[in-house]
Amino acid sequence: MQTLDKTHPIQELRTRLAEINDIESAASLLYWDQATYMPPGGAAARGRQMATLRHIAHTKFTDPAIGQLLEDLREYESSLPYDADEASLIRVTRLDYDRLVKIPPAFTAKFSQHSADAYEAWAKARPENNFAAVAPYLEKTLELSREMANFFPGYQHIADPLIDESDYGMNAESVRALFAQLRQQLVPIVDAIASQPITDATALHQHYSEPEQLAFSLEVIKQLGYDFHRGRQDQTLHPFMTKFSTGDVRITTRVRENDLNEGLFSTIHETGHALYEQGIARDFEATPLAGGTSSGVHESQSRLWENLVGRSRNFWEFCYPQLQAAFPQQLKQVSLDTFYRGINKVERSLIRTDADEVTYNLHVMIRFDLELALLEGKLAVKDLPAAWNDRYQSDLGIVPPSDTNGVLQDVHWYGGTIGGVFQGYTLGNLMSAQFFEAALQAHPEIPQQIRQGNFKVLHDWLKQNIYQHGRKYTAAEIVEKVTLQPLSIEPFIRYIKGKFGELYNF
Amino acid sequence: MQTLDKTHPIQELRTRLAEINDIESAASLLYWDQATYMPPGGAAARGRQMATLRHIAHTKFTDPAIGQLLEDLREYESSLPYDADEASLIRVTRLDYDRLVKIPPAFTAKFSQHSADAYEAWAKARPENNFAAVAPYLEKTLELSREMANFFPGYQHIADPLIDESDYGMNAESVRALFAQLRQQLVPIVDAIASQPITDATALHQHYSEPEQLAFSLEVIKQLGYDFHRGRQDQTLHPFMTKFSTGDVRITTRVRENDLNEGLFSTIHETGHALYEQGIARDFEATPLAGGTSSGVHESQSRLWENLVGRSRNFWEFCYPQLQAAFPQQLKQVSLDTFYRGINKVERSLIRTDADEVTYNLHVMIRFDLELALLEGKLAVKDLPAAWNDRYQSDLGIVPPSDTNGVLQDVHWYGGTIGGVFQGYTLGNLMSAQFFEAALQAHPEIPQQIRQGNFKVLHDWLKQNIYQHGRKYTAAEIVEKVTLQPLSIEPFIRYIKGKFGELYNF
Repeated sequence: MQTLDKTHPIQELRTRLAEINDIESAASLLYWDQATYMPPGGAAARGRQMATLRHIAHTKFTDPAIGQLLEDLREYESSLPYDADEASLIRVTRLDYDRLVKIPPAFTAKFSQHSADAYEAWAKARPENNFAAVAPYLEKTLELSREMANFFPGYQHIADPLIDESDYGMNAESVRALFAQLRQQLVPIVDAIASQPITDATALHQHYSEPEQLAFSLEVIKQLGYDFHRGRQDQTLHPFMTKFSTGDVRITTRVRENDLNEGLFSTIHETGHALYEQGIARDFEATPLAGGTSSGVHESQSRLWENLVGRSRNFWEFCYPQLQAAFPQQLKQVSLDTFYRGINKVERSLIRTDADEVTYNLHVMIRFDLELALLEGKLAVKDLPAAWNDRYQSDLGIVPPSDTNGVLQDVHWYGGTIGGVFQGYTLGNLMSAQFFEAALQAHPEIPQQIRQGNFKVLHDWLKQNIYQHGRKYTAAEIVEKVTLQPLSIEPFIRYIKGKFGELYNF
Repeated sequence: MQTLDKTHPIQELRTRLAEINDIESAASLLYWDQATYMPPGGAAARGRQMATLRHIAHTKFTDPAIGQLLEDLREYESSLPYDADEASLIRVTRLDYDRLVKIPPAFTAKFSQHSADAYEAWAKARPENNFAAVAPYLEKTLELSREMANFFPGYQHIADPLIDESDYGMNAESVRALFAQLRQQLVPIVDAIASQPITDATALHQHYSEPEQLAFSLEVIKQLGYDFHRGRQDQTLHPFMTKFSTGDVRITTRVRENDLNEGLFSTIHETGHALYEQGIARDFEATPLAGGTSSGVHESQSRLWENLVGRSRNFWEFCYPQLQAAFPQQLKQVSLDTFYRGINKVERSLIRTDADEVTYNLHVMIRFDLELALLEGKLAVKDLPAAWNDRYQSDLGIVPPSDTNGVLQDVHWYGGTIGGVFQGYTLGNLMSAQFFEAALQAHPEIPQQIRQGNFKVLHDWLKQNIYQHGRKYTAAEIVEKVTLQPLSIEPFIRYIKGKFGELYNF
């Protein structure tokens, strides 16, 4: 990815982009630190520091000199194939530039500062079950989210610019249509499972010590291919993956000592995100190409590794003896089958991140619909907890006993926009199945290999077809390119019916 | 520290300074992370990221608009008393500005990048005893250090601008004069001690597990007054204190399982630095006033807490029962007297940070003289290990068996300038005794309180007289103000003769 002529405008563009990337990476480190090790006294200044860096990065990216360079590079770009590295760099940079110039840098700083404040308020309010304490922050988040959307006039739905930002090419209408199809298929499956005897998952709810869980999950992800030379894992309140360079891609996790699922699967989930980022071409370092291409594609990788691999029977045929060896007292008497059924127990539950693969998307749809209602002004922030509980009642037949396990459970609205953040989870689930089908078509031996603890062919196929490209292709392009079809709910439904049909005899 | 008029130029100055402070704080976090948690793969980008931020901070600080604001504020400044907060802010900012405008921002970036590279090279070369691997980095450090000095023409000695930067008001000549006096007093003391029987310190060199050492030292510094709400401790290769805001002042430590001294006293040492920073007026947040006033004064606080408190008999009369309770197997049979003599064992040793209070300054003088010789061009980098060993032979009668324990032991030359970095340690030792005498004069009850584990009166006195002022007063001013005398070697010599005269009967 090297143009040798040092005076070529693309070199000047690269230099500027690297500087911006460095500032953004530092801002990411400020966030990682806030969410892992920062003492409480650091919070006030930290919000201001992140806002300052975001403001500088924004100002530098929207410098008219970058606009001019992008103009100067049009001819060069069109002389190259669409997916040449440099053509892609110019195209993706222009996409970002055209979006960012519509947003004033001061707005970015204000939003960043507000997000940091809201995050701190949420971190305190959640264990205290105190929605009232975060409500004023949410009000402001909503106002800022609307303001953000309105920098992109001409939308059909006010959520469209926010959705487009994380899942380029999608909008409220197309997501709604996809979700409606999916719901129609899922609801009868959930009902069919509900009529079956309740799965016994008590084996997973014994006492598992935190250090032993952490040690075991590190061992697992090393085997999956997470590169610890270029990453590490730390503990946090709400797990996330973050990246400071292609050489430093970190994950975070949280552990509950009375629930083996929590730490193990959140670790594998974040590892999926990290494998994606670690797999991006190293040549893309410090450019806008060095990132996942959309929220949905990113989530497809976390969910593929967490579920299609990590919750598969094949995987546990390999891994269960290791787990039993790590926790002999708890698991010596528990059969693989009991364990496998336990980790795939389907139930109408409260917490999205703990939800099984069948009901998970219903959790997402609740949040997506509520986001849209908030943005549309049809739902007031003060009425959000009640609306949340109503939807849990109607969609999942269960009411949260507290906001801690209800509307306060997810960090997203308290650390980012309202709108555009939840659809990616379900898009990711759909894509994960579609990509996995394509991988199996190319390499039918993958399931057998997983059973033997060999993840290399799958990992290489994903790197080759998805990871290495970073943001070179859009989500829609990559889905088409890899699966030869547009995104559809069919592979996911096939997968769910196959796996859970066997588990629950329907 | 609030001027109410929002349009007053000092508000504009504050806004600009806060932005610069935020960028510098982020750069400090990048360094902290590099030295604590960063995976090896992150190193390459990290150096570039730090350089980018330092470059931006430098550029923003030397913006002519800041020069203009400082001009516009001259009249306002002279309307205020010298030590009014705002007058001090303007004066100290001008001092920094006048210095920084002489250095091109690109030089700062180049130096920062080089320091990061040199640090990585050193971290690898030190355990491998590979001076050759760092020699080219040192060559460049030397060249850059000379270049830095030459931005300040008119000096008497090339080290002067570098010394002045860390210890404002000092220069090679004044440091040399002070060191010569000190050496004259110290050498006979070292000789007198050398004629005495060797102290038995074997009790300190049993096996002490790392987690237990860490837990104990955290307990100790909590009692000393380190505020964990505004700080934390992590492990590193070469301990340091760093600050991201007045609400987030962190320390780092390293532990050796066969040496109780190492972890415990490096923790107390860094805590001394942190107490200083945690004690600065919160109003100074995000301004140049929010920092220690000089390398020497900073070191006076680390050494005061490490030595005058932490290695005193009074302290261990209080603390030794706790230590015995934490390590009963190792220490139940060891008397307080044996322990106290052990931690104060004087010997001609290899490692500066492990050195006793009597010989410590001889280690510093070796480094100081070598720095000067390198800068003067009288010593070549390739000859540095031999020169180092010669000086250890002549000054301490001992030759390092390897460069790991010789010229590679200290991080400073590998992560900063050659010149201006070591004199502060001895200046700090001198000041620590001078400040402590003044504290005892004001509060003769302090030794008795320390014996009871009560550090509040001492801590409050230091906050009141030194810490709160941050950079408001220069080192010379604060020494005069607090001790009513200029800096002198007498209090230190009195302290050493008193304490070690008793221990070694001279």
